[in-house]
Amino acid sequence: VSRPNAEFSLIDWFRSQASAHDRLSVGIGDDTASLRISDCNRQLVTVDMLLEGVHFRIPDVAAADIGRKALAVNLSDIAAMAGRPTAAVVSVALSRNHGTAFAKEMFTGLKTLADEFDVAIAGGDTNIWDGPSVISVTVLGEVTGSEPVLRSGARSGDWIMTTGSFGGSLLGKHFSFQPRVTEALALHETVALHAMIDVSDGLAADLHHILDESSVGAIIDEQSVPISDAVKNDKSPIERALGDGEDFELLFTVSDDDGQRLLSNQPFDVKLTKIGVITESNQCQLRNASGRMSDLPPRGWEHIF
Amino acid sequence: VSRPNAEFSLIDWFRSQASAHDRLSVGIGDDTASLRISDCNRQLVTVDMLLEGVHFRIPDVAAADIGRKALAVNLSDIAAMAGRPTAAVVSVALSRNHGTAFAKEMFTGLKTLADEFDVAIAGGDTNIWDGPSVISVTVLGEVTGSEPVLRSGARSGDWIMTTGSFGGSLLGKHFSFQPRVTEALALHETVALHAMIDVSDGLAADLHHILDESSVGAIIDEQSVPISDAVKNDKSPIERALGDGEDFELLFTVSDDDGQRLLSNQPFDVKLTKIGVITESNQCQLRNASGRMSDLPPRGWEHIF
Repeated sequence: VSRPNAEFSLIDWFRSQASAHDRLSVGIGDDTASLRISDCNRQLVTVDMLLEGVHFRIPDVAAADIGRKALAVNLSDIAAMAGRPTAAVVSVALSRNHGTAFAKEMFTGLKTLADEFDVAIAGGDTNIWDGPSVISVTVLGEVTGSEPVLRSGARSGDWIMTTGSFGGSLLGKHFSFQPRVTEALALHETVALHAMIDVSDGLAADLHHILDESSVGAIIDEQSVPISDAVKNDKSPIERALGDGEDFELLFTVSDDDGQRLLSNQPFDVKLTKIGVITESNQCQLRNASGRMSDLPPRGWEHIF
Repeated sequence: VSRPNAEFSLIDWFRSQASAHDRLSVGIGDDTASLRISDCNRQLVTVDMLLEGVHFRIPDVAAADIGRKALAVNLSDIAAMAGRPTAAVVSVALSRNHGTAFAKEMFTGLKTLADEFDVAIAGGDTNIWDGPSVISVTVLGEVTGSEPVLRSGARSGDWIMTTGSFGGSLLGKHFSFQPRVTEALALHETVALHAMIDVSDGLAADLHHILDESSVGAIIDEQSVPISDAVKNDKSPIERALGDGEDFELLFTVSDDDGQRLLSNQPFDVKLTKIGVITESNQCQLRNASGRMSDLPPRGWEHIF
C-alpha cells in the first residue's frame, strides 16, 4: 500500500526514536524484527493493520477476505525472512454498522488461513465502536536455518530472482494471494539466500530496499520480468509489473551457481524467474530488449490505491 | 473497560473458534497466552487496542498518556502472569486532524514507559486516516520461574491479597498507573503464587474470574478492602472499590503461611493487603463489619465509562 509523505516522515521519526536495543538482533527496517530473548534466540515478530476506507471498502470486499488478508500480509513478511510462522494475535475495532455476522466471517477468513499454515491464534482484543472497522494482526515466527534472511545481504554478481508474476494485484490478487511461506522455507533449505524481501510496495521499490540495505546496484532485464495475466493487455504491462505493488511475491538474490540450479530444478509449483543481476555500482537500471539502459527509480510511476 | 453484551458474545464466539493448538501451553482466556515454540518454550504474548471516543477523548487526554496507557495495560497483563516483558510492536491509525506533533507525543509516552521497563520496540505499522485515532500494542514477555501464574490455581484456605488500592481510577489513575511488573516478579520469587490476575474489569469481576477458573469460592472482608483516596469521600467507597475497575493492581492468592510472611515483610513500597480467603463453596460473599454475609456478584453496580 503506497503511503502519503506525512506517513513516511512519521515512520522515519518513529524508527529514529525506537532506538537499538540489545534484545533486537534485527530491529525495525527489515520485513520483521528478530528478537533475542533468554533461552529463545530466534523470535520473529511483525504487525500489520488494515483500515476500512483505506485498505478495503465494505461491501466491495467480503469480510472473510479482509480477515484473510490481515493475516496473509504478515505471513508474507515472515516468509521474507525465511521464517516459519507460529502464532498470531488479533485486535479489532468493529464498526457497529456491520454487525456480528460480518465480524464472524472476518474471523473465519483469518482462521482458515491460520489453519492452512498451522498458525495458533494466541489472543485477541475485540471492540465494537461507531468508527470504521480496523483489524490489526501481529504474527510471531521462528527463524529457520542458522539466521533469518535479511534485505542487506545482496552481493555483486548475484542473480536477482522472483517467485510468481507481477502487476495488477489490486484487480483481485491482493486479497487472494498465497503468502510464499512454503516456497521461502524450501529455498532456504536448498540454496544460500543472500537477501530477500516480499513485494508489497512494488517490484522496483522493494528492489531498491534490497539495494539500499546491501549498498549495491542492479540491472533488471525488462523482457525477463514475469507479467501477471491481469495486466498483459495493459498499455504498459512492464510499468504495471514494476510499480503496482501488493504482489506479495518473493524477491531474492543468490549466487549464479545457486540461481542456475533453481532455474533448472524449479523446486515447486510457483515459477522462479531470473529478472536481473546485482552490480557493484550504486545504480538501479532497466535494460530493454535492444540493450538500452534507463534508470529504474523506486517509484517510476504514480500509483493510487 | 466494561463491554457491552454484543462484544462479550462475539468474544465468546471467537474463543470457541480459536481452538486449542498444541503450541499454546496457555490459550485465550487468561491474562496472556503462553506459547511453546521450538527451542523457546516460554513466550508470553498479549494485545490491547485503545480507541478514540471509546477509551480516550482528545483533547481531554494528553497524547503521551494515551501512548503510555496503550503499553501499560499490556505490561499489567504480563505482570499478572508473573512474566517479564521483553518487546512490543505497535500499530496505529492516526486521525489526520491531530497532526504529527500528536503522533510523536503519543509515541514518546509509550517509549518512555518502554524504557522504564527495558522493553524493546520491535516493530510497528503507522497509518494516517480520516477516522478516529487507534493504537494497538502487542507485548511479548518471558515466563519467570518454572511456570506462568494462571487464574486457575486458587485453593481453599488461600489468602486473597492485593497490591495498592481500589476505586476511582477513572479520575486519573487509569492513565498514570504503574504496571505491577516489578512487584509481580518479586512476589513470584518470594512465595508460591497460586493464582493471579490484574484488576481491569473491577475487583469483584476479576475475583470472579479467579474463582470461576479455579472452581472455588471466596469470602471478602468489606473492612479490609483498600480504598483509593480518590473515592474515600464517595457515598459508597466500598462499591467504588469493588466495581470501578481499571485499577491495574494485582489480585492474587497464596497459602496462609506465605500470606502471613508477605504481610509482615511488606517486601516493596506498594502496600500488600489481605482482603479475604478462598473457600470450598461455589459462592462469592462479602462480609461486613458486623459479620453479616451478602452475595458479591461480578458486577454489583452498573458502571459507565
